[in-house]
Amino acid sequence: MQQLSSLRALPPVLSFRWVLAVCWLCLLGQRAAAEEIKSPNANLTLTFALQAGGVPTYSLAYKGRAVIKPSRLGLELKEGPGLADGFAVADAKTTAFDQSWQPVWGEVKTIRNHYNELTVTLNQTATKRVLVLHFRVFDDGLGFRYEFPRQPALAYFVVKEERTQFALAGDHKAFWLPGDYDTQEYSTTTSKLSEVRGLMKAAVTPNASQTTFSPTGLQTPLMLKSQDGLYINIHEAALIDYSTLSLELDDKNFVLAAHLTPDALGDKGHLQTPCLSPWRTVIVSDRAGDILESKLVLNLNEPTKYPDTSWIKPTKYVGVWWEMITGKSTWAYTSGGNIKLDSIDYAKLKPNGTHAANTAHVKEYIDFAAQHHLDAVLVEGWNIGWEDWFGQSKDYVFDFVTPYPDFDVAELHRYAAGKGIKIIMHHETSGSVRNYERHLEKAYQFMNDNGYTAVKSGYVGDILPRGEHHYGQWLNNHYLYAITEAARHHLMVNAHEAVRPTGLARTYPNLIGNEAARGTEYEAFGGNNVDHTTILPFTRLIGGPMDYTPGIFQTRVSAYNPANTSFVHSTLARQLALYVTMYSPLQMAADLPETYNKFLDAFQFIEDVAVDWDDSKVLEAEPGDYITIARKAKGRSSWFVGSTCDENGRTSAISLRFLDPGKKYVATVYADAKTAHYETNPQAYTIRKVAVTNRSKLTQYCAPGGGYAISIVEGPGQR
Amino acid sequence: MQQLSSLRALPPVLSFRWVLAVCWLCLLGQRAAAEEIKSPNANLTLTFALQAGGVPTYSLAYKGRAVIKPSRLGLELKEGPGLADGFAVADAKTTAFDQSWQPVWGEVKTIRNHYNELTVTLNQTATKRVLVLHFRVFDDGLGFRYEFPRQPALAYFVVKEERTQFALAGDHKAFWLPGDYDTQEYSTTTSKLSEVRGLMKAAVTPNASQTTFSPTGLQTPLMLKSQDGLYINIHEAALIDYSTLSLELDDKNFVLAAHLTPDALGDKGHLQTPCLSPWRTVIVSDRAGDILESKLVLNLNEPTKYPDTSWIKPTKYVGVWWEMITGKSTWAYTSGGNIKLDSIDYAKLKPNGTHAANTAHVKEYIDFAAQHHLDAVLVEGWNIGWEDWFGQSKDYVFDFVTPYPDFDVAELHRYAAGKGIKIIMHHETSGSVRNYERHLEKAYQFMNDNGYTAVKSGYVGDILPRGEHHYGQWLNNHYLYAITEAARHHLMVNAHEAVRPTGLARTYPNLIGNEAARGTEYEAFGGNNVDHTTILPFTRLIGGPMDYTPGIFQTRVSAYNPANTSFVHSTLARQLALYVTMYSPLQMAADLPETYNKFLDAFQFIEDVAVDWDDSKVLEAEPGDYITIARKAKGRSSWFVGSTCDENGRTSAISLRFLDPGKKYVATVYADAKTAHYETNPQAYTIRKVAVTNRSKLTQYCAPGGGYAISIVEGPGQR
Repeated sequence: MQQLSSLRALPPVLSFRWVLAVCWLCLLGQRAAAEEIKSPNANLTLTFALQAGGVPTYSLAYKGRAVIKPSRLGLELKEGPGLADGFAVADAKTTAFDQSWQPVWGEVKTIRNHYNELTVTLNQTATKRVLVLHFRVFDDGLGFRYEFPRQPALAYFVVKEERTQFALAGDHKAFWLPGDYDTQEYSTTTSKLSEVRGLMKAAVTPNASQTTFSPTGLQTPLMLKSQDGLYINIHEAALIDYSTLSLELDDKNFVLAAHLTPDALGDKGHLQTPCLSPWRTVIVSDRAGDILESKLVLNLNEPTKYPDTSWIKPTKYVGVWWEMITGKSTWAYTSGGNIKLDSIDYAKLKPNGTHAANTAHVKEYIDFAAQHHLDAVLVEGWNIGWEDWFGQSKDYVFDFVTPYPDFDVAELHRYAAGKGIKIIMHHETSGSVRNYERHLEKAYQFMNDNGYTAVKSGYVGDILPRGEHHYGQWLNNHYLYAITEAARHHLMVNAHEAVRPTGLARTYPNLIGNEAARGTEYEAFGGNNVDHTTILPFTRLIGGPMDYTPGIFQTRVSAYNPANTSFVHSTLARQLALYVTMYSPLQMAADLPETYNKFLDAFQFIEDVAVDWDDSKVLEAEPGDYITIARKAKGRSSWFVGSTCDENGRTSAISLRFLDPGKKYVATVYADAKTAHYETNPQAYTIRKVAVTNRSKLTQYCAPGGGYAISIVEGPGQR
Repeated sequence: MQQLSSLRALPPVLSFRWVLAVCWLCLLGQRAAAEEIKSPNANLTLTFALQAGGVPTYSLAYKGRAVIKPSRLGLELKEGPGLADGFAVADAKTTAFDQSWQPVWGEVKTIRNHYNELTVTLNQTATKRVLVLHFRVFDDGLGFRYEFPRQPALAYFVVKEERTQFALAGDHKAFWLPGDYDTQEYSTTTSKLSEVRGLMKAAVTPNASQTTFSPTGLQTPLMLKSQDGLYINIHEAALIDYSTLSLELDDKNFVLAAHLTPDALGDKGHLQTPCLSPWRTVIVSDRAGDILESKLVLNLNEPTKYPDTSWIKPTKYVGVWWEMITGKSTWAYTSGGNIKLDSIDYAKLKPNGTHAANTAHVKEYIDFAAQHHLDAVLVEGWNIGWEDWFGQSKDYVFDFVTPYPDFDVAELHRYAAGKGIKIIMHHETSGSVRNYERHLEKAYQFMNDNGYTAVKSGYVGDILPRGEHHYGQWLNNHYLYAITEAARHHLMVNAHEAVRPTGLARTYPNLIGNEAARGTEYEAFGGNNVDHTTILPFTRLIGGPMDYTPGIFQTRVSAYNPANTSFVHSTLARQLALYVTMYSPLQMAADLPETYNKFLDAFQFIEDVAVDWDDSKVLEAEPGDYITIARKAKGRSSWFVGSTCDENGRTSAISLRFLDPGKKYVATVYADAKTAHYETNPQAYTIRKVAVTNRSKLTQYCAPGGGYAISIVEGPGQR
């Protein structure tokens, strides 16, 4: 990453001396109690106001329409008076910021970080405490955070609850997940806010670890659409050393209130000044595509501090994974349960015959990856312990360095390296986080020693230490610890079941992927909603890329495991589209080589599609209905288009005006056949080649649960 | 340590196959429901009986007198039926064991492990579960434990409470501490059991971390004396992967019930079969000295698995410590509070002028240690973070490798090594255990790199992870992790504020010391009871050595810090006695060199006294009143005697028949002067030399709070 400018609007943390100066200014005269700033394009207006009793509030308008009505700010503390009222404005100042930067990987080559900032310093006279509010207004939304400067009257404090509100202007349509301290692996429910309470029970489906907290609790990123057509997204950015934000809905007044994840004692954060809350974000537009194109969350994160990022590489991979997810194979080497890792001797146990991660079989994946110019092979189930790993609050569940007897680490390293293929490490922790941290250094060193450059980590099940939650401050601290320790080893991390991302990959770009949502695996666990992939880019992906693991061509799971009647709620053509619509620098071709070998013409798109981009354009978008995106491959002239739609099917009409004027291209269109249908005929696809220019238009049928993918390559005859 | 015999009575964990065999035997015919075994000398009788409803019980008699009346056994589980009733006896067998072994360090050269064992296998018919009870009856007491064999119907279980009882025969006199999940730093209260409830409130004095649980909760080791003169000690042995035992007193019926330390969720243990509970121990005799001489707790622990123990060395040391405890100096380098370790720059801060752990000052301690043939110098406050380390639930509180600017690690290593002195590392964790584990490997490596061979660790304050307790299964696991990781680095551990020992030093002999009681430091925090050191060997020391840090010659703390009016409740002569009466392979000369230089004649005893022994004899003992012990130095003919008494003073009369017949010795007696008194005249001592043989007798006056020390060296003129 190259920093284009060293300009900084504000030091991230105010010095104590500065605070004293503010206090002194305060004595000279209290400032007016309302302040207003606009976005650079003046479409958004942020108003800060102190209400009666010294209660800080803010409101946000977009083109004169209320997005957030006056809403409270502040925090309630576990002990003593809170930081939610009794304030006077000591200082308010406005600054401007405009800087562009280049991400290590991303959807575009250059990101403009352009905002006006209002900084309000509040004095709580009775307690002699100071609270600073930062509001940054971009053309695409608002970010605001709390700053707690170093000060004599506030050193340590325990948060009872953050009292931030988002008072909405009406009973919006919402794309929501049940609020939960431990999982986001729920189907999205689409309803009016007033309908949430009635739909909550059905929305809370079982998970290996889950803790809901309210009949109107919601998760972020929360996507909303007002009746008059405003698209609003509420999330957070830069979640560091703080508890994860959920939202508690007042379904009479349509006010969302912050609800933080508690620790084992029920507290919601242990903070020490000087410190900062994460940013609370409101992205807003009257065009849905603007939500998808917003870089607001990334911009609110700090530039990376890694001096060298050359070792971070976007990756396309296959993996020994879907065959276990479907039940065709097993992670475990034997069929016994109740094992203790420190006393089991696998050499004396009978293999179960279904263990997928064996040397010969992994070589088949390596061969396939090499033949099709992929980068890597993920192998799950390579290490001992899988016979008894889950759901028992087990402490010493894996050691992360000992392979099963049939997995030859050195030989596979040699074999893969000889073909230019990386093997991706897998660290399932089973939620036993102390055990993982105890083994982390050796496990990472093992990766360095054996040629692994990336790790998929997992946090299935309830957390150890007991009483802590996946999304609490304790675990958020852990996830970042794992990422920064991995960076010391030049390792990339793809963390599953960890907290959903908040743009941290700008600062820590080796965080190359996350799950934190209902991924493709659920297609083998009963299925995802057909419109799932038309929603995820508006919700989960607002915080960062998702390892969604698309590319399932054999959509009938029973083909692999007759006992499993699940099916993938997508046509084959739409599976290709997801490589474009579901942005990630880490993309899996999730199906089995044996299946891909039957559909090599379609697989060609997966082989060709880029995983890093110089540009991205949202061509069509409506949450829950359809998304069509075009992206330009990094450092190349090729473009790739993906389109996904819901269960109704549709006809997509796009213009190719994003192509360079005057150039000639060949577009290869992978589309649903006329008879295609996600349930009854998912594998009916067509492939056609068309000569195109930037004046071309395309009208393309999308089957129910379908879509299409296009690769557009410069020059006739080229691919 | 040399294992004298490889004979083993029982495998520590029964195999599943064996359990099946037992079940089969069970079908052939149920065994009689009562079993009895005796100690090798037949003084003790253990009776196991199934009561109505299949309730397992045991009782213990000593010379025909009831020690433990029929008492329940079993566990209540969090889910499903418990393991406390519904049992039938499937098998009962008796075995004998007699083996001697040599500890790596200890009070005697060779320890005899001699017992009869009753193993009772119980079938819980309704649940098809098996529970095995082991009773080992030694001449000096009973140990019993639960074994949970690997079995189909019991893999994982969560303990709600252990239901073990100790039904006492009467309203005994007890030497007790309030039951607490986090501290044992209480003064001992001496009372009848029936008086506990009324005295509890006064007994619970403030501590940095404390969690009492009941008005009749008691800690172990619990020392009791019956009205007819039986001495009874209740404790546990081999506390591994289990929660710490406290006792809940029924003060009407004098029944003690097990009360385990809960985790953050209130549960009392997560177990997976096959596994074992710790041993529950009852040491009993009609002679108090037998309690002190008992090796029962050590014998119930496993032999060490360390292949090499040559790096474990008993150690006598001075330390940069008492001057901070008294308030004369500080651990901190500056006077500021509220610091963050990752952003503070000490080079820019003004030193407070009272930081003791500076290079020049530490060299003075090194010089003193070298002059007086001590082994080591402990240095506390050497590392950054002490300005803000305590009581704030702070996570990243120390990094364990970064010295203050005025502490030159390399120079002090060089200087100390040149004089044959070791520097003892100090790792205060502030209870932030995750942080410590994250730094553990680097901290231990830092010790290896810089010549440190032992570490004093500390766990002051509430535990992180929050909700866990000092004595819970989670922390017990941590303490042992720190010990075994240290062993990989050939490092000795002296853990303060950790769980009280249970003989684990037999298995892990690098656990060379523990605090886990009210040590000498409390003499500067208001004082210890005068009889404190006449009790501790009967209570805390039953589990293992204590780093009591004796040797305070300047008993008026105000001499170091005028603001501190505390004083040491002991005469100077008794401070010398403690090196013998308070057995530890790690002994501190805790006072300042400047003070020792004023009393070099008395300090000679500290210089001479051994810290490892070939033999030990308790010459006189009555808990709460007095203790006189003689010990023979390891590999030498010299003996050392120590005697401590309570606030009443007394005249001690001992025989030196422990000396070798026919040999001549010179005894140097360090005794209270006639006018000595712990409060009014503590420094009045006399030193005299006497020629003695094994026929000599000694009558020696001990002042109130006084005592005496004797070094006995072979041959006239020798020292």
